Amino acid sequence: MSSKKILIIGGVAAGPKTAARARRLDPDAQITILEKGKYISFAGCGMPFYLSGKIHDFDHLYSTSYGVKRDPEFFKSERGVDVFTGMEAISIDRANKRVIARNVDTGEERVFEYDKLVLGTGSYPITPPIENLDLKGVYRLNHLEDAQTIKQALDAGEVNDVVIIGTGFIGMEAVDAVFSPMRTVTVVEFRDTLLPGILDPDMGTLLYKNFYEQGLEGRFGEKVLRLEGEDGRVTKVITDKGSIDADAVILAVGVRPNVKLAQEAGLTIGETGAIVVNEYMQTSDPDIYALGDCVENTHLLTGKKVYAPMATYANRQGRVVGDNVTGGKSTFKGILGTGVLHCMGMNVARTGLGEVQARALGYDIESILVATFDMTHYHPNSNKILLKMIVEKNTRKLLGIQGIGKGEVAKRIDVAATMMYYGGTLDDLLNLDLGYAPPYNTPIDPMVHTGMALKNKLEGVANTYTPQEVKEKLARGEDFVLLDVRTPQQFNMRHIEDDRVQQLTLGELREKLDQVPGDKEIVTVCVMGTRAYEASRILQGAGFKNVKFMEAGMEGWPFDMDDF
Amino acid sequence: MSSKKILIIGGVAAGPKTAARARRLDPDAQITILEKGKYISFAGCGMPFYLSGKIHDFDHLYSTSYGVKRDPEFFKSERGVDVFTGMEAISIDRANKRVIARNVDTGEERVFEYDKLVLGTGSYPITPPIENLDLKGVYRLNHLEDAQTIKQALDAGEVNDVVIIGTGFIGMEAVDAVFSPMRTVTVVEFRDTLLPGILDPDMGTLLYKNFYEQGLEGRFGEKVLRLEGEDGRVTKVITDKGSIDADAVILAVGVRPNVKLAQEAGLTIGETGAIVVNEYMQTSDPDIYALGDCVENTHLLTGKKVYAPMATYANRQGRVVGDNVTGGKSTFKGILGTGVLHCMGMNVARTGLGEVQARALGYDIESILVATFDMTHYHPNSNKILLKMIVEKNTRKLLGIQGIGKGEVAKRIDVAATMMYYGGTLDDLLNLDLGYAPPYNTPIDPMVHTGMALKNKLEGVANTYTPQEVKEKLARGEDFVLLDVRTPQQFNMRHIEDDRVQQLTLGELREKLDQVPGDKEIVTVCVMGTRAYEASRILQGAGFKNVKFMEAGMEGWPFDMDDF
Repeated sequence: MSSKKILIIGGVAAGPKTAARARRLDPDAQITILEKGKYISFAGCGMPFYLSGKIHDFDHLYSTSYGVKRDPEFFKSERGVDVFTGMEAISIDRANKRVIARNVDTGEERVFEYDKLVLGTGSYPITPPIENLDLKGVYRLNHLEDAQTIKQALDAGEVNDVVIIGTGFIGMEAVDAVFSPMRTVTVVEFRDTLLPGILDPDMGTLLYKNFYEQGLEGRFGEKVLRLEGEDGRVTKVITDKGSIDADAVILAVGVRPNVKLAQEAGLTIGETGAIVVNEYMQTSDPDIYALGDCVENTHLLTGKKVYAPMATYANRQGRVVGDNVTGGKSTFKGILGTGVLHCMGMNVARTGLGEVQARALGYDIESILVATFDMTHYHPNSNKILLKMIVEKNTRKLLGIQGIGKGEVAKRIDVAATMMYYGGTLDDLLNLDLGYAPPYNTPIDPMVHTGMALKNKLEGVANTYTPQEVKEKLARGEDFVLLDVRTPQQFNMRHIEDDRVQQLTLGELREKLDQVPGDKEIVTVCVMGTRAYEASRILQGAGFKNVKFMEAGMEGWPFDMDDF
Repeated sequence: MSSKKILIIGGVAAGPKTAARARRLDPDAQITILEKGKYISFAGCGMPFYLSGKIHDFDHLYSTSYGVKRDPEFFKSERGVDVFTGMEAISIDRANKRVIARNVDTGEERVFEYDKLVLGTGSYPITPPIENLDLKGVYRLNHLEDAQTIKQALDAGEVNDVVIIGTGFIGMEAVDAVFSPMRTVTVVEFRDTLLPGILDPDMGTLLYKNFYEQGLEGRFGEKVLRLEGEDGRVTKVITDKGSIDADAVILAVGVRPNVKLAQEAGLTIGETGAIVVNEYMQTSDPDIYALGDCVENTHLLTGKKVYAPMATYANRQGRVVGDNVTGGKSTFKGILGTGVLHCMGMNVARTGLGEVQARALGYDIESILVATFDMTHYHPNSNKILLKMIVEKNTRKLLGIQGIGKGEVAKRIDVAATMMYYGGTLDDLLNLDLGYAPPYNTPIDPMVHTGMALKNKLEGVANTYTPQEVKEKLARGEDFVLLDVRTPQQFNMRHIEDDRVQQLTLGELREKLDQVPGDKEIVTVCVMGTRAYEASRILQGAGFKNVKFMEAGMEGWPFDMDDF
């Protein structure tokens, strides 16, 4: 029996993972990786941390956890895998099961045969229609070399005014990496808020509020038209609304799947623009597998195809493909769009569908915004977090959750993603046995607490307005009482300036019910929503018919983009 | 319609939670709490943090998150709940639906009527059969006053030699609170390791190894017989194996449910010794509910009744009882025994069954020990963790997981607990969509990675010995090769001293296969298990028939209690 030829195109994440798994399962296979770039198996996700100086040594980005560089020699000696860097695959000859590749330095062509072919061709950054992108000082974050170039400019003290175009995960990781009180950092976003499509607009706006207070400049709903420069170096970003000084511009407007090779070979490309694969990660040619940033995935909630290029999928799919090219039958079932981000001291996490996405898909939903602590409030490490939860109304199935805050949110989102894998409902959530001790959690986990609040809302026990809705009611000039039940000190620190605001602390409410107008709608408000909820129940209990409270309290009070 | 009388006995956690929920749902109910102690609604779990000085203000332990003391006045004004402190319920007259109570100061008796009675009578600390427990300097951690007394002694500098008897959660939280390089702290445990019944012995021992290196003294398998003192103050702890100097002794040998009142009223008590309740938290008398530390719970995996007094259950059950005493039909489905602990810089978490428990219950199991990083190894905040996972062999159902380390483990255990709620399997685990970014996770989550390793083990792809098994093989004098594939530097830092150890780095293994004896069993070992696994696959691929690797590498190398 001659040994099986496994040929892998792409050496960043998905390919090497596939190779490693295949090698363990089939010691006799001939495994070859072709990579057109210089580095293989590198930690693209680590680039922002190298930029920020958190990772000092560039080599760490392509070393194993035990400090060995993952270069072709490593792959040969430790894995028994042949790696060709600087070798670009240019066509697939499916009939003869071979790939034609070209040495990017010499131009020399070379043929590689395969029994099983694996496409891990990745993605490429979108180049937006902006003039003068070839000026010096304009960067992308795609290759390790990009990170080195930016880092050198930062370290040389050449960079004072950074403009980042695009505020998705990559854009915001770039913000985190370059933000410093010594520089002006501006983000320009074509859509209305930070992290569009990742967070709902209300959450994106609340997140920006925090960043703005730290000094980040945001330009939203603004389109970059061109860059201007002097002596070949960028000096200005010109948008449809004005101009921004810039001596460095980072482009982060997203990526597209690299499907040219697959498409030219006649493999099926999906509506998302990425390669179609089945749950075994097979393309329309059963001897050709594809994975990572070049394929589309199935959304586990909606069943629809989505393009979601995430490192974790590439890695997990690598194991599945490694199994299957060596005779296994492993499956990758789909995704929920879970994502986490650390930026400027804030934790951001989301999974499932946002409110906007869910409504657009036709779901009949209910949602709630809750402000709470990430651990017992008396613990010195406790921090506030904001959670937004979305469920389907009739089934009470969890559809999505988003969290932001200085406190821990990633854990809660992982638990939600686990529930959603099982089609979990609100009632399940209230029965989860999650770990509690004061340094880790509140006695009732914040996400469970959020679920309880949403259940109250669904069952009419809690009648609420979102902060956004309250803001709109005020703006419309509606006649109602905004009853602030905080302490006078809390009120004085920050409150809504309006004649319709009335003050009564929760403690005095029961005794001073006669001071609350019985003929008007009452909306109670406090710091985080807890006392306002309590107050609303007291008023309803006392016979007030038209009472609501404001979700998440002043913590959730919207930040008006127009104010800035 | 006269208003419903809801009478609640016990004012620590479960009772006040019930009252708050009931009040929100029924504004007309007469809600009364009887508490024999001085404080109500206090954060018992916060006491260790007050002791350690992390929480400065004693009042924080019984204040709301917005800084208001939860005293009877607060309950009256904000909740409309009547609270009687220093009021001990002494009997239940079920026929006439009334409770006789006694003022603990005046001895005066008083009758309280009820329509629905709620027992939140909690637990009491076990008093072990040790002589002279009444000496000064002997403490418990049950009441807020206990914390104050110990804190005063610590602050006065009177405490140099602390002995903590019992190493469950409370004992270890006490260790965390009082441990300091300025004092000698010794734990005495009747069983063989730390956290018996909470962690498996191998995990408990690995945890103790870390604590021992920091300076904690452990006495295991040792029984305290009596205390000795001078001038009425404790000076020594005498065990069946010796004596320990002590100027402070903290008793933490566990708690028992407080069921006297229920038992005398003829309510059914379970085999666990706690009050029997159904999923609505009703006792054998449908008008009497019970919750929190005085009831038994159903284990969701085994279906068996267990006694698991945890604050989080008390709180969540409070909501269920609050619903049901006001006409609702909420349920508390059961528990998984999830627990987390922070002690001396280590995170500890567990859920489900331990290996020992699972085997005792007759499960046919497989388990694995994995050492890994809690986030990308190149991130400066990354830390090592050890995870032990247990599954049922034929169903591959997750039965339990335990984690210890400086790194994040609580998140992983929450995810596992969520899976186990749904009866999740290893295959589910490999398909979870958990959040990844370098500051939060590895591209493949540590628990998913552990699941993959266990799957490899079940499917014969990974053949392993646990570190304990390797140690036993060496001790038995078996003839085999312990092949250490680490770098020479790593080997020199710490290795197993034995003639059977052979050195070959993973990188040179493929070329030097002829140096590996073909006629002996080979056990590969490295730092954390990854390279040893790789090496085992290389050897198997090269035709070596009898190859295994050591799980978790030197990170999991057992600590011999007898060495100390």
